Amino acid sequence: MGRTPPHPQVSQFDLQQVLEALVDPVRRSVVAQLVAVGEDIRCGDFDMPVSKSTATHHFRVLREAGLIRQYYVGTSRMNALRRAEMDEAFPGLLDALTPRAGRPTGAPPA
Amino acid sequence: MGRTPPHPQVSQFDLQQVLEALVDPVRRSVVAQLVAVGEDIRCGDFDMPVSKSTATHHFRVLREAGLIRQYYVGTSRMNALRRAEMDEAFPGLLDALTPRAGRPTGAPPA
Repeated sequence: MGRTPPHPQVSQFDLQQVLEALVDPVRRSVVAQLVAVGEDIRCGDFDMPVSKSTATHHFRVLREAGLIRQYYVGTSRMNALRRAEMDEAFPGLLDALTPRAGRPTGAPPA
Repeated sequence: MGRTPPHPQVSQFDLQQVLEALVDPVRRSVVAQLVAVGEDIRCGDFDMPVSKSTATHHFRVLREAGLIRQYYVGTSRMNALRRAEMDEAFPGLLDALTPRAGRPTGAPPA
């Protein structure tokens, strides 16, 4: 468990921090992909037009804001959307930014 | 009408631009004050902890994103929330960021 990075609790979620995470289109696309797929995604399996180190940075910002939970399966770092906790802290926000049907709003063109 | 600044149409609203406007806590507070008061507010009547020139910048960013409509009454520049148009373009977004009841989410402490 030593490799599991720290995650904030719902009570620590901060709207400012969440918005700063979601204002970046690449990070918003990561969340949109988790919403669209509906299951956890390995870091390397996201469609991200950035370098691996930049991707790692984006994942950290999302994790620290409480948007995703990261855990290991073997050597793979997995990412889970913290949907229920986000909906509890900021009702409607994820729905507004990442509609569940159709092309995710604001996602970069494929 | 020459003094009325340009405003985007709903079809021109862009989620990225709207989020960049709303990620700033002072600008989010301006929107929250319009939601809370429920009527148009003169530029000078907002509670904004910034200089007049910085406030003018914030109003322009909000106007260009489509969040507010500005117009003159005599020498006063008034600000109206473009609520219906925002709700049409991005359903639920304003509700998620600025609850209508209670203290606006994410507003700086008074």
